[in-house]
Amino acid sequence: MTAPLFNTICFVGIGLINSSLARAVRKHGLAARVVTLDADPAACQVALELGVVDAAFTDAAAAVPGADLVVVGTPVGAVEAVGRAIGPHLAPGTIITDVGSVKIAVLRDLEPSLPEGVHFVPGHPIAGTEHSGPAAGFAELFEGRWCILTPQAHTDAKAIAKVRALWEAVGSTVEEMEPHHHDRVLAITSHLPHLIAYTIVGTANDLEGHLQQEVIKFSASGFRDFTRIAASDPIMWRDIFLNNKEAVLEVIQRFTEDLTALQRSIRWGEGEVLEQRFAETRAIRRAIIDAKQDR
Amino acid sequence: MTAPLFNTICFVGIGLINSSLARAVRKHGLAARVVTLDADPAACQVALELGVVDAAFTDAAAAVPGADLVVVGTPVGAVEAVGRAIGPHLAPGTIITDVGSVKIAVLRDLEPSLPEGVHFVPGHPIAGTEHSGPAAGFAELFEGRWCILTPQAHTDAKAIAKVRALWEAVGSTVEEMEPHHHDRVLAITSHLPHLIAYTIVGTANDLEGHLQQEVIKFSASGFRDFTRIAASDPIMWRDIFLNNKEAVLEVIQRFTEDLTALQRSIRWGEGEVLEQRFAETRAIRRAIIDAKQDR
Repeated sequence: MTAPLFNTICFVGIGLINSSLARAVRKHGLAARVVTLDADPAACQVALELGVVDAAFTDAAAAVPGADLVVVGTPVGAVEAVGRAIGPHLAPGTIITDVGSVKIAVLRDLEPSLPEGVHFVPGHPIAGTEHSGPAAGFAELFEGRWCILTPQAHTDAKAIAKVRALWEAVGSTVEEMEPHHHDRVLAITSHLPHLIAYTIVGTANDLEGHLQQEVIKFSASGFRDFTRIAASDPIMWRDIFLNNKEAVLEVIQRFTEDLTALQRSIRWGEGEVLEQRFAETRAIRRAIIDAKQDR
Repeated sequence: MTAPLFNTICFVGIGLINSSLARAVRKHGLAARVVTLDADPAACQVALELGVVDAAFTDAAAAVPGADLVVVGTPVGAVEAVGRAIGPHLAPGTIITDVGSVKIAVLRDLEPSLPEGVHFVPGHPIAGTEHSGPAAGFAELFEGRWCILTPQAHTDAKAIAKVRALWEAVGSTVEEMEPHHHDRVLAITSHLPHLIAYTIVGTANDLEGHLQQEVIKFSASGFRDFTRIAASDPIMWRDIFLNNKEAVLEVIQRFTEDLTALQRSIRWGEGEVLEQRFAETRAIRRAIIDAKQDR
């Protein structure tokens, strides 16, 4: 029997992503032991009861020592405090990675707390659902999905290879990317769509009562497609917007210009402009289906 | 054996909705004969080959006489021309309905061509997919969905009852509504979401080549939810926006105000405002799931 990829993995924060990864690690036998550190005792309890982890702790001093891999899976706004809590307990040679949706801010907030000899390999699995918490996770979440790693020039190559091997073992395809580029790409593929979905569902939420009921009733006509992602975790998303501010503001600006142009075409009855614009967007859907990323 | 609900139904335009309804009519034995009138000979051919209709015509004089129900299922911008083409062939007592996504404009464009004694019951099934054309239809499309009828005060009660019976027989729940109210509700539940989806997918489409490839690759992070509805028929949607201009422009205005407020909160780091706003929208998703309209 070959040795597992890691001896002990400590999952910091046991929400949707980390609890899915913990399940996948156990399913594929990628670690001898799986523990979690979560500030919320209720989340620890659920993770233990569901058999997602071998042990759960609310105290870093109990959770972190002995782990050869630490996976930070908290909202990105909590990463700085996580770094301060776990930093003193990280032994040289430990690999630390994360699953955060922004990468510049995580590097900025986590690196200062990491002792010499600890290897940080920032990561971001492009997978998720609108559900939150340890009970929402499932081992297959990462199968057929991309995972982006954003190591730096000085990052230990062996540490990168081990984190890559972890994601590949749970079914993902790994791509390395420069962290600024990651934040810009995700601003358009993920952060803007979520902001737009939150906005449109909020606009509907503000309608007078009877109209709001009808919005729910007749949501199959388009609206419901937005409500799924607008049901995502509010704290996670608050932190993403606050921590990828520049890239997000830039794509909102582009989006608003494009919406204003369509609005003007509607006002002035420019049917040809509308038809042409609507025809262009079909090609992207086809490309997504061809890339098997449509579900 | 009881007589079917209708003798001959003539479907004008044999796209996704009408070909689905034709299939459902045959499946449930709701008409003795099903024919189509479509200006496109290729669509007629497909409908015949798939056994969706008994006969297909490109000429109104051949298609319409003998039908006791006519269902107009063309893009709403074509309804006026359809009225002029079929009007002379409609016998007194014929019922005519439509499946258009706007109702004021259809009433405006169709009624002037209808002879005395023809009963017009405007309708709108709240169902659809992003696919178009006669081959995309399926008999179950309307099961568990709403269908809105917008008859006028003078509309014949028996004609309304028969159109209602048709939609109920194919699995829908029917609601009657005033046409102005329909156009306002659908502007928020359907027309705005489609415009936003077209816009955001268009914004991505305008990116430089390599970034566009990455948008497709990493679309599972939110973007892909928008691409499905942005793949809807361009001509159908051009016509909807041009024919529900005032209601659509009003909801775009509301949406833009809300987006601008969130943009400002991101710029100024107002985390509490963002969190609160994002938490509110979860409730609407739950209501949609409770109303069984989430898929």
